[in-house]
Amino acid sequence: MTSFIAETTSLLARTPGLLRTLLVRLPEAWTETSDVAGGWRPRDVVGHLITGELTAWMARTHLILEHGTARPFERFERFAMLERDAGVPLDDLVERFAALRADNLAELARLVTDADLDRRGLHPVLGEVTLRELLSTWAVHDLDHVSQVYAGLAGSHDAAVGPWKGYLGILLRRDDPSAVAG
Amino acid sequence: MTSFIAETTSLLARTPGLLRTLLVRLPEAWTETSDVAGGWRPRDVVGHLITGELTAWMARTHLILEHGTARPFERFERFAMLERDAGVPLDDLVERFAALRADNLAELARLVTDADLDRRGLHPVLGEVTLRELLSTWAVHDLDHVSQVYAGLAGSHDAAVGPWKGYLGILLRRDDPSAVAG
Repeated sequence: MTSFIAETTSLLARTPGLLRTLLVRLPEAWTETSDVAGGWRPRDVVGHLITGELTAWMARTHLILEHGTARPFERFERFAMLERDAGVPLDDLVERFAALRADNLAELARLVTDADLDRRGLHPVLGEVTLRELLSTWAVHDLDHVSQVYAGLAGSHDAAVGPWKGYLGILLRRDDPSAVAG
Repeated sequence: MTSFIAETTSLLARTPGLLRTLLVRLPEAWTETSDVAGGWRPRDVVGHLITGELTAWMARTHLILEHGTARPFERFERFAMLERDAGVPLDDLVERFAALRADNLAELARLVTDADLDRRGLHPVLGEVTLRELLSTWAVHDLDHVSQVYAGLAGSHDAAVGPWKGYLGILLRRDDPSAVAG
């Protein structure tokens, strides 16, 4: 079977376990640094992913299925987590995300089939988009932001690697996005 | 306890489970694209991590402990995996890496304590380095290359996200390293 929904769900279903494996009980020596100056720490990234589960991906799926292009999506509040999650331990955020993602994937499986993928909705900035594009973006958004977690973890050891920094693109790019490792 | 070795090992021990969670039985629709044009697919990255386990990290630790700066490290053969791993399924590479990493961390625990961290070795290009820098680099090298896996997975869906690409830095940077997402 080459079902687009099955393939996309296969990736989306992995992210909670992955964040658990990477972050739960990881020493704070690794987790307190942001991806770039003024950027997000791992806890901010997980909070942002929680926002997506709460307000964006399934809410937009519902809008497409129920209203098509007649009603635009709500904006994605990119910084909602900073206030909402203040004081919540990172490990609890990971579990909160995991519970929300599981619920959302169960709902997606109930609501959507591959026959719905060309149905359209209205993004407030981007204009018309398809359900297929929305679901692909959900998955790539995970990959984008988990990468940001990696950059923060690496950044915590920027000085610790000594002269090896010149070989480590993940550190060089925190200082200069166009840097190429030696 | 704030043992440097315990903290570093905590991250190093997570990478095999993480690659399993991310890659094993993931549909090929996700896994056949490289991080950048001419770059590495996920299987090449896992192969490169295998090379590190086979030839670099513990071999260099032994050199530091047994010969200090008297004998330089061997070069890290960055492309050894392309021939060595040809035809080996990705899932098997992940398990091979996991077995090697487990053995190496067990050996590290037997051989090294925090009292050894300032001992020095000789890198063939970078000059004198400490064991602490070597172990930090081992961990950040994991983060650097797992990020590369993420970029390849995302790249497989570059066209599928439609107009959302402009918001997805992980895709924009594959075309232009200095790109900033909207």
